Amino acid sequence: MSLTHFNEEGRARMVDVGEKDDTKRVAVARGYIEMKKETIEAIKQGAIKKGDVLAVAQVAGIMGAKKTSDIIPMCHNIFLSGCDIEFQIDEENSRVYITAKAKTVGKTGVEMEALTAVSTAALTIYDMCKAIDKEMIIGDIKLIEKKGGKSGHFVRSD
Amino acid sequence: MSLTHFNEEGRARMVDVGEKDDTKRVAVARGYIEMKKETIEAIKQGAIKKGDVLAVAQVAGIMGAKKTSDIIPMCHNIFLSGCDIEFQIDEENSRVYITAKAKTVGKTGVEMEALTAVSTAALTIYDMCKAIDKEMIIGDIKLIEKKGGKSGHFVRSD
Amino acid sequence: MSLTHFNEEGRARMVDVGEKDDTKRVAVARGYIEMKKETIEAIKQGAIKKGDVLAVAQVAGIMGAKKTSDIIPMCHNIFLSGCDIEFQIDEENSRVYITAKAKTVGKTGVEMEALTAVSTAALTIYDMCKAIDKEMIIGDIKLIEKKGGKSGHFVRSD
Amino acid sequence: MSLTHFNEEGRARMVDVGEKDDTKRVAVARGYIEMKKETIEAIKQGAIKKGDVLAVAQVAGIMGAKKTSDIIPMCHNIFLSGCDIEFQIDEENSRVYITAKAKTVGKTGVEMEALTAVSTAALTIYDMCKAIDKEMIIGDIKLIEKKGGKSGHFVRSD
Amino acid sequence: MSLTHFNEEGRARMVDVGEKDDTKRVAVARGYIEMKKETIEAIKQGAIKKGDVLAVAQVAGIMGAKKTSDIIPMCHNIFLSGCDIEFQIDEENSRVYITAKAKTVGKTGVEMEALTAVSTAALTIYDMCKAIDKEMIIGDIKLIEKKGGKSGHFVRSD
Amino acid sequence: MSLTHFNEEGRARMVDVGEKDDTKRVAVARGYIEMKKETIEAIKQGAIKKGDVLAVAQVAGIMGAKKTSDIIPMCHNIFLSGCDIEFQIDEENSRVYITAKAKTVGKTGVEMEALTAVSTAALTIYDMCKAIDKEMIIGDIKLIEKKGGKSGHFVRSD
Repeated sequence: MSLTHFNEEGRARMVDVGEKDDTKRVAVARGYIEMKKETIEAIKQGAIKKGDVLAVAQVAGIMGAKKTSDIIPMCHNIFLSGCDIEFQIDEENSRVYITAKAKTVGKTGVEMEALTAVSTAALTIYDMCKAIDKEMIIGDIKLIEKKGGKSGHFVRSD
Repeated sequence: MSLTHFNEEGRARMVDVGEKDDTKRVAVARGYIEMKKETIEAIKQGAIKKGDVLAVAQVAGIMGAKKTSDIIPMCHNIFLSGCDIEFQIDEENSRVYITAKAKTVGKTGVEMEALTAVSTAALTIYDMCKAIDKEMIIGDIKLIEKKGGKSGHFVRSD
Repeated sequence: MSLTHFNEEGRARMVDVGEKDDTKRVAVARGYIEMKKETIEAIKQGAIKKGDVLAVAQVAGIMGAKKTSDIIPMCHNIFLSGCDIEFQIDEENSRVYITAKAKTVGKTGVEMEALTAVSTAALTIYDMCKAIDKEMIIGDIKLIEKKGGKSGHFVRSD
Repeated sequence: MSLTHFNEEGRARMVDVGEKDDTKRVAVARGYIEMKKETIEAIKQGAIKKGDVLAVAQVAGIMGAKKTSDIIPMCHNIFLSGCDIEFQIDEENSRVYITAKAKTVGKTGVEMEALTAVSTAALTIYDMCKAIDKEMIIGDIKLIEKKGGKSGHFVRSD
Repeated sequence: MSLTHFNEEGRARMVDVGEKDDTKRVAVARGYIEMKKETIEAIKQGAIKKGDVLAVAQVAGIMGAKKTSDIIPMCHNIFLSGCDIEFQIDEENSRVYITAKAKTVGKTGVEMEALTAVSTAALTIYDMCKAIDKEMIIGDIKLIEKKGGKSGHFVRSD
Repeated sequence: MSLTHFNEEGRARMVDVGEKDDTKRVAVARGYIEMKKETIEAIKQGAIKKGDVLAVAQVAGIMGAKKTSDIIPMCHNIFLSGCDIEFQIDEENSRVYITAKAKTVGKTGVEMEALTAVSTAALTIYDMCKAIDKEMIIGDIKLIEKKGGKSGHFVRSD
C-alpha cells in the first residue's frame, strides 16, 4: 500500500483529480464533546432560554467546512453545494454529539469538509464553555457515510 | 454557573479582555488518531524513507494554531509567540499521539490555539491516509496543561 | 413564508444547491457614501492629480467580492467569473455612488458578491478619509438587478 | 486638507503608527437593514421560536470585525480585545438596527472594526432573508462614538 | 496594445471569463533562491538527516497556490485540480531551483497559481534559513510552459 | 551552523520569541520585474493617463505584507505598524523596481513582511500584464536593510 499524496521525491503534492468526473458526492461525519454534567446543563438552559452555544457552533462548523482547503494542506478547494450540522445531547454520558453532512457536485469527495465541520463545531463548544469546564474531551471523530465517486458507497459498520 | 460568552440579549459576544495583564502564557493539548496497522506502517515507512505524513501534519498544525481566531468565532486574535508539535506512535493501539504546545505573551490564554493545532494535525493525517484507510478515528483531544493568567496553573490529573 | 436557511432544529444551514443547473448569472448592487464637501473635494483632487482613493476602493471591493463566502456564514463558495465596480460622484449631495456588477456561471446567484463589493468599497473609502472626516455615512446599499437562475430577471423599480 | 494614506508618489500606504502610545480605545458604530413587514415578522418569529437570523448575524459580525484588516487594504491588523453587537427591531419603520462596539488596547482606533461588524451583520441578515425579500436596503452606517487616542472623545451629534 | 484588466474609467476590474470554455489547463513556473554554500549545506543535511526545509517549503508552496486569488487582486478564484513542486539543488551556483506545476479544468489559466507556488516556496526557504544567512536572493521566477485555453501551447524558449 | 526552525524530532516549529523585547523594527526589501519594452510602455501610459497597474500592485503588496504569517508557515503573526512600497521604472533594462518598507514594534523582525510585499506586488504586475507579455521575469528579491532587535543594523553591501 502506498500513500498517493507524495511525489517521486517523497514530498507532498496535491493529487491531480482533473481526470475524474463531476458527480454528486455526500459525506457524513460524527464526533462528540464530553463535559461535566453542569456544563451540559448550562448549554441546555442556554439553548432553551437564551445564549445558544450550539447555534454559534453550528455557524462555526459550516464556516469551517468552507475553509477546509485553506486548513488542510493537500485538500482541493472544491465548491461545497450544501452543509448542515445536527447536535444531539446524550445526558447519560454527558456528551454533545455533532453530526455534519457535506455535499458537492465535483471531482473529489467531501469527507474532509464533513470532518472539519465536526471538529470546528467541537472546538467552538470548547471555547464557549472553557470558563466553566477545563476538562472537556473531544472524541470519536470519524466518517459515517460517503457516497458518489468511483470508490462507491461507504457506510461505517460500527 | 453562567457562560461568559453571551451578552444581555443572550447572543454571543467576544469577551472583553482589555483589563487583563500581559503575561506569559503556555498551553499544552493532546489527542490521537487511530488507524489500521497497515496505515501506521505506511506512515512509519514514509517517515523513515520518504513521504513524511507527519512533517505535513506538523506544518498544518502550526498554521492551524495561527488561524485559530479566524476559525473559532469568539476567540481573540492573539500574537502567538511560539508553537511546537510532537508525534508519538503507539504501535500497540495503532495510534499516532499528537501533542501541541502554544505560547503567548498576552491578555488571554492559548488553550484554543493548542487544541486547534492538535485537531488540524489530526485532520491532515486523516486526509493524507484516507485513500488507504476510511475508518480512522480522531479521539481524546483535551487540554493537558495551562500556565499564566489569573486562573493559575492547571495540570490535567488523568 | 419561511426562511430556507434553517434546518429542522431551527439552526442555520447552508442550503443545498446541488440540484440546480449551472447557468450564467449576473447581479448589480449599488450604494453610496456621503461625506463633507471638503472630503469629496479631496477625493476628486486625488483622482485627478495623485492619491486615488477610489482606485484603492476598487481593488478592495473586487477582493471583497471574492471573499464573500468567507465573510457571510451561509453563502456558497462560488467561482466568480467577473467583477467590476464603478464610482459616480454626486456633488450636489456630496456622495460617492458605488455600483458593483458580479458574474458567475454556477448553481447560485451572485447578489451577495455584488453587495459585499459595494459594502467593502464603501468601508475602504471611509477608512482612507476618516482622518479628515469622522461623520461619513454609508447608505442605501441594495440590489439593482439580478439575472439567471430559476427566479428570473429582477430589476428594482425605484 | 490632505489624505494621510498616500505616499509621495501618490500611491496608498499603510500609515506608520509605531510612534503612537498603546491606549484603551473603544468605538461604536450603527446602521440598519430595512425590509418588508413580512420579513421582519419572519425574523421575529425565528428569534422567539426557532431559526434565529440575528444569532447568525451576530457571529458573522464579530468574525467580520476580526477580519477587518484582511478586508480593508490600509487598515492595521490590531488585537481586538472585545466585540459585541446589539440588535433592535424598529417595527414602525420595518428595520433592524445593528449597533456594534469594538475595543482594543493599542496604537490605533477601532472604528473600522465596529463599522465592519455592522456591515457584515447587515449583509448576513440580507443573505438569510433574500429568498423571501429581494428589496431590503442597508442604510445609515456611521460612527456613533470613539474614545481613546490623541484625537479625543468623539460623540456623533445627530 | 492595451491592458485588459482596466474598465472604461481606467480602474481595475476582474476580467469576465464566463464565456470561455472549461478546458484542461496546465502551467509550469520556475525560479531559484541563491544562498551561501554553508546554507545550502545546512539544507542538504537537513533533507538527508532531519529537519527538512524543503518539505516545509513544498507544503507552503502548494497552500500558496490555493491562496492565489486571495493574494492577487484581479485573479479568478479557480478550482485547482492538482499541484506539485520539485526542488533541484545546484551546488555550483549555490542555488535551490523550484519548479511548480499547477492544473485545473476551468475557464482561465493557472500560470498565476504556478508562479505563486514558486514564490511562496522561495519565501519559506528564506524564512527558515534567515537566522544563518541574511543575503539570500530570490530570482528568475518565470513561466516555463502553459497549455490549454485559446492562447494555445506556450513553451519558453530560453 | 544549525537551523533554529526545527525541534528535536527534526520537524518544523515556530521558534519561541516570547523572551525577546518589544523594540521598533524596520526592514526594507527590493526586487524587480523585467518585461518587454512595450509592456513597460503600457504600464507607464496607464500610470499617466488611466489604468494604473502600479496602484493595484501597491495595494496588493501592502495586503500581502499583512498576510505574511498566513502564507509563510513558521512566521509569527505580528502587528505591522506601517508599510509602504515604491516603484522605479528602469527603462534601460526594461524593469520595474519594487522597494517595500515594513515596520513593527514587536518581538521579531519584519524582513519576511517586506519580502512578501515585494513578491506580491511583482506577481500582481505579472497578472495584470500577462495578456500582452508571457515572458516577464521576477528577479533579485533580497533584503536591503534591517534595523531593531538584538541582531543589530544590517545594510546590504552590494
